[in-house]
Amino acid sequence: MPFEKENILLTDLYELTMCASYFDNNLDCRATFDLFIRNLPRKRSYFIAAGLDEALTYLKNFRFRAGDIEFLKSKGLFKKPFLSYLSRFKFTGDVYAMPEGTVFFPNEPVLRVSAPIIEAQLAETFLLNAVNLATTLATKASRVVTAAGYRPVVDFSLRRTQGMHAGLAAARSSYIAGCAGTSNVLAGRKYGIPIYGTMAHSFVMSFESEEKSFEAYLKTFPLNSVLLVDTYDTLKGVARAAEIAKKLEKKGNRLSAIRLDSGDLRALSKKARAILDRNKLKYVKIFASGNLDEYKIAALLKNGARIDAFGVGTAMGVSKDAPYCDVIYKLSELNQGRKTFPVMKLSKAKVTYPGIKQVFRIKDGKGNYLKDVLGLADEKIKGQPLLIKVMEKGRVLHGVGLEKIRHSAARNLEMLPAKYKRLSDAPVYPVQISPGLQKLAAKLSKRIRRQNGCSA
Amino acid sequence: MPFEKENILLTDLYELTMCASYFDNNLDCRATFDLFIRNLPRKRSYFIAAGLDEALTYLKNFRFRAGDIEFLKSKGLFKKPFLSYLSRFKFTGDVYAMPEGTVFFPNEPVLRVSAPIIEAQLAETFLLNAVNLATTLATKASRVVTAAGYRPVVDFSLRRTQGMHAGLAAARSSYIAGCAGTSNVLAGRKYGIPIYGTMAHSFVMSFESEEKSFEAYLKTFPLNSVLLVDTYDTLKGVARAAEIAKKLEKKGNRLSAIRLDSGDLRALSKKARAILDRNKLKYVKIFASGNLDEYKIAALLKNGARIDAFGVGTAMGVSKDAPYCDVIYKLSELNQGRKTFPVMKLSKAKVTYPGIKQVFRIKDGKGNYLKDVLGLADEKIKGQPLLIKVMEKGRVLHGVGLEKIRHSAARNLEMLPAKYKRLSDAPVYPVQISPGLQKLAAKLSKRIRRQNGCSA
Repeated sequence: MPFEKENILLTDLYELTMCASYFDNNLDCRATFDLFIRNLPRKRSYFIAAGLDEALTYLKNFRFRAGDIEFLKSKGLFKKPFLSYLSRFKFTGDVYAMPEGTVFFPNEPVLRVSAPIIEAQLAETFLLNAVNLATTLATKASRVVTAAGYRPVVDFSLRRTQGMHAGLAAARSSYIAGCAGTSNVLAGRKYGIPIYGTMAHSFVMSFESEEKSFEAYLKTFPLNSVLLVDTYDTLKGVARAAEIAKKLEKKGNRLSAIRLDSGDLRALSKKARAILDRNKLKYVKIFASGNLDEYKIAALLKNGARIDAFGVGTAMGVSKDAPYCDVIYKLSELNQGRKTFPVMKLSKAKVTYPGIKQVFRIKDGKGNYLKDVLGLADEKIKGQPLLIKVMEKGRVLHGVGLEKIRHSAARNLEMLPAKYKRLSDAPVYPVQISPGLQKLAAKLSKRIRRQNGCSA
Repeated sequence: MPFEKENILLTDLYELTMCASYFDNNLDCRATFDLFIRNLPRKRSYFIAAGLDEALTYLKNFRFRAGDIEFLKSKGLFKKPFLSYLSRFKFTGDVYAMPEGTVFFPNEPVLRVSAPIIEAQLAETFLLNAVNLATTLATKASRVVTAAGYRPVVDFSLRRTQGMHAGLAAARSSYIAGCAGTSNVLAGRKYGIPIYGTMAHSFVMSFESEEKSFEAYLKTFPLNSVLLVDTYDTLKGVARAAEIAKKLEKKGNRLSAIRLDSGDLRALSKKARAILDRNKLKYVKIFASGNLDEYKIAALLKNGARIDAFGVGTAMGVSKDAPYCDVIYKLSELNQGRKTFPVMKLSKAKVTYPGIKQVFRIKDGKGNYLKDVLGLADEKIKGQPLLIKVMEKGRVLHGVGLEKIRHSAARNLEMLPAKYKRLSDAPVYPVQISPGLQKLAAKLSKRIRRQNGCSA
């Protein structure tokens, strides 16, 4: 990952001031934090977990370098013993998490960190950022892929993602969610994702005529080419592409596709199909792009557009209609020696559940998802536990390859009943709170209100 | 910048395939591209230019490394002479740009690249990404700062920005736009931005009681502390903070502020102010945070909230209501030997202006902005030219320090009449097309339609 070597200061200052005070007050307890999403963003009905690989890479390399310590020292905020502690700091905790590609829901921990409190606290900002980014984008992309049915979708978002890190995450997350590939070359190199791309309007405009630009391109790439036909007049562009495809045939080559990037894609695709078919070019596919998202793709296909594949950019790469998830990282338990203190937050509309928790997925005989139960990890609940141990004492237990993650996401989405995959007005998937967790929460809530003199 | 050393492949594949074909067809002309934003995102009425520093750093270091070439070779797409050309590739072009912090409007080039066509084309994806990210976030932050009046705003967005690169850009862009600082420690180190932060709810919950957590924190940080008072019961938390502030006074120290992070911030801030004032703690400020944006801040202040400073996170850091700008990079002129060919695009709703252009700003006697004129660079137009030469033959001409950029942004916003700074329903700032540019566009449009057989 690009930030591997310098990310420890990519954190909120309060993580460091809190830790300085924990250190100063000899608060040497072990803490457990849950990372979860509080609410579904608008129109969403599920999440696709992503970002774990980056989170674990981060924790594995979680070190302060000399320059970092120098900078902190220069701020005049921190005492020497704490800075000296930081210079020796590393992450020694345990992490449980849902594997990337898991379908999950609000209030379900997707990641759980147990570590000495300073280590667990210092990781907060990065973990939130990594999981939020990758999960937001995977969730959005899975909607786009669903809308496109079995047609390939290619990620075209890099030029307008919120930065380069987001561009890489967009390519990886959308691939996990079922996209066929990306235009992002570095993502191709880093993750082994298939890369796609041929020409832009500026290419066509750099030649004397559209025809000459097509010929020039095919001279360089006689195989598997896609011609962009809408620089001047789309249907004339299609006719020119058809002529050129016939010439290619004579050389024994085939034009792969034409690309439509503007105008009324439904009408143009139908007319383009007719022109291609008239020329006996049934094998030439129609690729469409240009401000697409899941809603537009669904509407196009519903209305009979003749499109074989989609390039989707900005709306998917920034998750335009919901550019973040309400992801939070909440303390749920403290351990001091042999004593255990479950913890919860009571401030209005921000209540959290205490204790070491597990998410249990209840399925029918065919494997379809029926409901989840959020319970205590040591409760006996029938159902598949979704959180598995991924890091022990700071050591990554096992990596999962991207192809396997992608396959597992597809399988998970298949097992999620269709009604939850509607693009809007999907019902709420049931997530129940187990009896054990309800009991613990009630008991603790009473005690906290008493101790802190709450009025309610 | 974090991506300095590995960003050349952070590009769309089609930039490389187009360039391979330019190379293959000996298209050795010089090209000029304009980078501009086509439309105002919803509720926006102006943009704040940002991202130039990163764009120039990128162009300066624009090299393919051995591993990059190896990867491209492995794809089997590119011919040997082109790969060999890439291994020697560097950027030798000229760049004109609006300085960061400039107020600008749709269709005005914010950056103009003139270079051999392959160099200019290869830079497209990164330039778009960098300018879009920084400009989108600076523009959003400037609205938040405007809503807050003279009260300080601190960027709290890192945990939910779209990745770490976006987190850094959010801190830098919001500082340019007038924020007082950021919670992002690395942004503090990299850019010298003031950093802020004290404690989270988990800190308060890690101690036996709220009171003990406050005492522990003040033991470590007796000066300039901010106590978070809403973990259990907000007003009781304020009362506890007031008690502690009185104890601090006896030691000669002062509590800096309390922080409200949830609930009805208007009502709570008024009650908190009353509690503090009753305890003769007029100097203790009230800092508010929790899902804020420009609309909520404006409403709070309009309704008499007693808030002295704001922490603004996600909505600002992802520009929630408009997470990107419709930024594009369009070919406007080709030069071959002594011949000049202005270029424009005619496809529906995506028309571009040809030629080497300049943006002229017309002001009144006091310096207030009246209107802009988009004209040809060599036209004689009275007004301040906004595009200045920032790179010559691949060499950065002069860097501008962040403080100077921030100061210039403040000055620019001051000169923009108030009506254009309304949070919604602002009038459209006039941008006129010069007679020379109109004439060129009309002439060229006619010629293109003739050449390519357009129907209109």
